[in-house]
Amino acid sequence: MDLESKYLKLKEHFKNARVIESCAELLGWDERTKMPAGGADLRALQNTALSKLHHELVTDSWLGDALHELAAESSNFPPDSDICVNLREWLRVFTRANKIPVSLVEELSKTLVYSQQAWQDARSQNNFSLFETWLEKIINLKRQEAKCLANGHASYDALLDDYEPGATSLELDSIFYPLKDSIIKVLNSCSKENQRSVILGNYPEQRQKIFSEIVAGYCGFDFNAGRLDTTAHPFCCGIGPGDCRITTRFNPADFSTGLFGVLHEAGHGLYEQGLDPDHFGLPTGTAVSLGIHESQSRLLENQVGRSLEFWRFIYPLAVKFFPAQLANIPLQDFHKAINQVQPGFIRVDADEVTYNLHIVFRYELEKDLLSKKLSIKDLPGAWNTKMEAYLGLTPKNDAMGCLQDIHWSAGLFGYFPTYLLGNLYAAQFVAKAKKVIGWNNNALNVDILFELRQWLKKNIHIQGKRFLPGKLCENITGEKLDKKYFEQYLFQKFNP
Amino acid sequence: MDLESKYLKLKEHFKNARVIESCAELLGWDERTKMPAGGADLRALQNTALSKLHHELVTDSWLGDALHELAAESSNFPPDSDICVNLREWLRVFTRANKIPVSLVEELSKTLVYSQQAWQDARSQNNFSLFETWLEKIINLKRQEAKCLANGHASYDALLDDYEPGATSLELDSIFYPLKDSIIKVLNSCSKENQRSVILGNYPEQRQKIFSEIVAGYCGFDFNAGRLDTTAHPFCCGIGPGDCRITTRFNPADFSTGLFGVLHEAGHGLYEQGLDPDHFGLPTGTAVSLGIHESQSRLLENQVGRSLEFWRFIYPLAVKFFPAQLANIPLQDFHKAINQVQPGFIRVDADEVTYNLHIVFRYELEKDLLSKKLSIKDLPGAWNTKMEAYLGLTPKNDAMGCLQDIHWSAGLFGYFPTYLLGNLYAAQFVAKAKKVIGWNNNALNVDILFELRQWLKKNIHIQGKRFLPGKLCENITGEKLDKKYFEQYLFQKFNP
Repeated sequence: MDLESKYLKLKEHFKNARVIESCAELLGWDERTKMPAGGADLRALQNTALSKLHHELVTDSWLGDALHELAAESSNFPPDSDICVNLREWLRVFTRANKIPVSLVEELSKTLVYSQQAWQDARSQNNFSLFETWLEKIINLKRQEAKCLANGHASYDALLDDYEPGATSLELDSIFYPLKDSIIKVLNSCSKENQRSVILGNYPEQRQKIFSEIVAGYCGFDFNAGRLDTTAHPFCCGIGPGDCRITTRFNPADFSTGLFGVLHEAGHGLYEQGLDPDHFGLPTGTAVSLGIHESQSRLLENQVGRSLEFWRFIYPLAVKFFPAQLANIPLQDFHKAINQVQPGFIRVDADEVTYNLHIVFRYELEKDLLSKKLSIKDLPGAWNTKMEAYLGLTPKNDAMGCLQDIHWSAGLFGYFPTYLLGNLYAAQFVAKAKKVIGWNNNALNVDILFELRQWLKKNIHIQGKRFLPGKLCENITGEKLDKKYFEQYLFQKFNP
Repeated sequence: MDLESKYLKLKEHFKNARVIESCAELLGWDERTKMPAGGADLRALQNTALSKLHHELVTDSWLGDALHELAAESSNFPPDSDICVNLREWLRVFTRANKIPVSLVEELSKTLVYSQQAWQDARSQNNFSLFETWLEKIINLKRQEAKCLANGHASYDALLDDYEPGATSLELDSIFYPLKDSIIKVLNSCSKENQRSVILGNYPEQRQKIFSEIVAGYCGFDFNAGRLDTTAHPFCCGIGPGDCRITTRFNPADFSTGLFGVLHEAGHGLYEQGLDPDHFGLPTGTAVSLGIHESQSRLLENQVGRSLEFWRFIYPLAVKFFPAQLANIPLQDFHKAINQVQPGFIRVDADEVTYNLHIVFRYELEKDLLSKKLSIKDLPGAWNTKMEAYLGLTPKNDAMGCLQDIHWSAGLFGYFPTYLLGNLYAAQFVAKAKKVIGWNNNALNVDILFELRQWLKKNIHIQGKRFLPGKLCENITGEKLDKKYFEQYLFQKFNP
C-alpha cells in the first residue's frame, strides 16, 4: 500500500470510532435531558457496550505498527500538516490507551459507577463518611493510572495532560498562586451592597426559553444544527457536524441564571459548530483542549454576555419580553445586577471574580490528595480552611463544601484547572480581538459579534488540534499564556 | 463446554446484539422527535455503523455450528422451553440473514436511502414518475430477496413471514376477501350524517398533552418507564426494559386525533412494558409478531378507547379539561362523534370500518406488484380503481392516492396485512377477555382495565416469542384466528 492508502485506511478507522463515540454522546445527552428514570439500567448496558467497542477500535492491535510505519514514512512532511497532526494525536491516544492495562480500565469503570452513586447518597444525606472509602478507592486507582502513564511516577501532570495537553503543574503553580492574591484584592474592593435583588421577579419559563434562544441565535449559535433543552447540570454536547445540543436550567425568579447558562454553553457550541466538518472524526477536526474549550464558553458568557456594550443592544428586547419585571430598571442598574460580586459556597453559582478562587483551592486539594500530602479523612477540614482563607466563608456542611462537585466521584482529577485556564485564555484572546476587530467598549452589536465569531473560527475552531494549546495561544496573540490579561480585565471591570 | 455454558454464551452474544440495536432505536426515536435538521448526514453515518455492527453480530461465523450443536444437544427438551424457543428463533434469524448475500443487503440498504428521498419528493411534488424507477428497483431487489429466502421462488409469503411468522397469503386471501364484502356491507349501513363536527373547537396543545398522559396512565402506561413526545408520523419505540417511548401529533381543532394516537401507541407500549425484563435481548423477551403487536394497539385504541363504557369514566374529566368545547355536548353525542364512519383518501386518518378496506387493497396491489401481474407504471390507475370499488372515492391526485404511505419506498412488502391481522386478533382476544374478566358493556373502569392488562400480560406480553402467533391465538382463545369476531364486533357496534 502506498502512503496515501495507508493514511486513508487509518482515517476511516478513526472516523468510524468517532461515529460510535458520537452515538454514545447522543445517549449521554438523552440520559440527562429526556430519559425516563426507569431507563437507567438499560442505559448502563448501552454505555458499556459502546465504550467497550470504542476502546477496542482505538486500541486495535494492527494500529501500533501502522501508525509508527506511517509516521516514519511521513517524517519529511511539515509538522503542522494534516497527516503529521493526525498521526501525532492518534499515537498519543493509542499510546495512552495501551499504557493502561485493560484490568485497570475495567476496575476504574466499575468503581466509578458505584462511587458516583455513593457520592450522590453522601451529598443528599450530607454525610462525607458515605463517600470516604469510595474516594480513597478512586484516588488509589487514579494513582495507578498516573503511574502507568508516567513510567512509575504517580504524577498529577500525567492526569492533567489528558485534559490540557502540554500543561504542567509547575506552570500552573506559577500562574495560579500569584493570581489568587490579585483576585482576593479585587474581591475585597468590590461593593458589598446587594445590587442583584432589583431584577428578581417572576419570569415564566417558556418566555425565558424563547428569549434565550433569540439571544443565543444573535450570538451565532445555529439552531438548524443544534437545540436547547433543560437539565439539572447544564452542559454542551457536540455530537458531530450539524448536531450540537446545549442545555440550561431556568430559575423562575431570575431569568439571568438560565440565560447565562445558555450563553456559556452556546460559547462551547460555537466552538463545536466551528470545527471543520470535512475533518469530522479526525484530530484536525476536534477541539484542542478543555482549557481552550472553556475559554470559548467564558468569553461568550462573561466578556460578551456580562458587558455593558452587549446589553446596550439586547436590553430593549429583554424589557419587551419581561416588561413587568424590567421596565422600570435602568440599563446601568441591570448591568450592575448581573455583575454582582458576592462570595458564596457553591462554585457553579459563583460570579466572575470568586469563581477563580473556587478553582484554585480545588486544584491545591486534588494535588495534595494524589500526592498523599492530604489524607482523605482530612478533606472536609482542609476544604473548609481554604474556603475561610480565600472566600471568608465557612461551609455549614459538606454538601455545601467538599461534596458539592461531581468531578472527583467521576474520577476527574486534573480537570478543575482547565476552568481557570479558560478564563485566562478568554481574557488574552479578547485583548487581542479588540485590537483587530471593531469591538470596543461602546459597541458589541450583531456585526461585531459576527466579526468576532469569524475571528474565533479562523484562529481557533477550524484549527482543531493542529497546535498544542500553548502554541495556539502564541500563534493568535503573539505571546505565551499570561495571566496579566485576566487581571487587567478584572481590575478594569471591578475597580473602575 | 457443557450445554449450560454454551447456552449462556449464545444468550450473552444475542443480548449484546440487542443492546446495540437498542442504541439504534434510541437514535431513531431522536431522529423523529428531537434531532435538528442539520444532523441528518451524521445520523445516516451513525445508523450505518450500528446496523453494520448488529448484522455482523447476528451473522458471526461461529454461530452456525454453535446453534446447530446446541439444538442437537437440547432436542429432548420440551419445544416450549426457554432454550428450545430461543434456539428456534436464533436459527431463524441466523438462517434468514445468511440466505441473503451481503451484496444484496448493501444494495438494498443503499437503494432505500435514495428511494425514500425520491418518494418524499414525488409525494410533495405530486408526481408519481419521480418515484416510479425507484419503486421498480426496490421491487426487483425484494424479488431477489424473496428468491433467496424461498429457494428460487419469488414468493410473497417469504417476505410476509418476516413480519408475521407462519402466516401465508393463501390463509390471508381466505380471510381478507370475504371480510372485505362484510365490511362494505357495514359501511353502506352507516349513517352519512356528520356527527363529528360537534366536538371541533380550540384545544390548546399543552392541555391536550396533559390530558392524554392522564388517560394513558389510567390505561396503565408507565411514565416512569416511558415518555410521550410529538412527531409527524406517530410511532412507539420500545428501546428496552424501563424505556418505552410513545409519540403522537396534536390537532388544535380536534383533541381526539392526538388522544387516539396516544392510546394506539400506548397499546403498543403496554406490550413492550409487559415483556419479561429478565429475558431482555432474547426471543422469549421479544414481541411475537407485528400482527399481535398491532392487536394490542388496536385493542386499546378502539375496543377500549372508542367504547361508551370507557368514556363513562373518562368523559367527566375531559369536560373539566376542555369545558368551553365539551360542557354542552352529551356523552352520547360525543361517543357518536369519535365513532363517525366516513370513507376518506388517507389510511392513517381512517375510521375503524374503512381502515380495513385500505389494507385489503394495498395487500392485493403489493402481491400483484411482486408477482409482476401489475406493472409499476399501472399502479396509480390500479390504486384508483380499487379506491372507487371499495370506498366509492376517486383520489384527486397520487399524493392522496398511491404515494401516501412510506412503506413501499422503505422496502416494506408484506407489512400492510399485519395491520388488518391486528384488528382481527384484537376482536378475538376481546371476545375471550369479556368472558373471563368483569368487562361488559356497562363498565370499563380502572379496576377492569387493570384486570384486562393483567390478562393481556399473562397471556400475550410475558410469553414473548414462545409460540408462533397462530398458536398463541389458539392457546388464548381455544380457536384458530377467526374473522367472525371482528365481523361481530363491527355489526354490533355499527348496526345496532
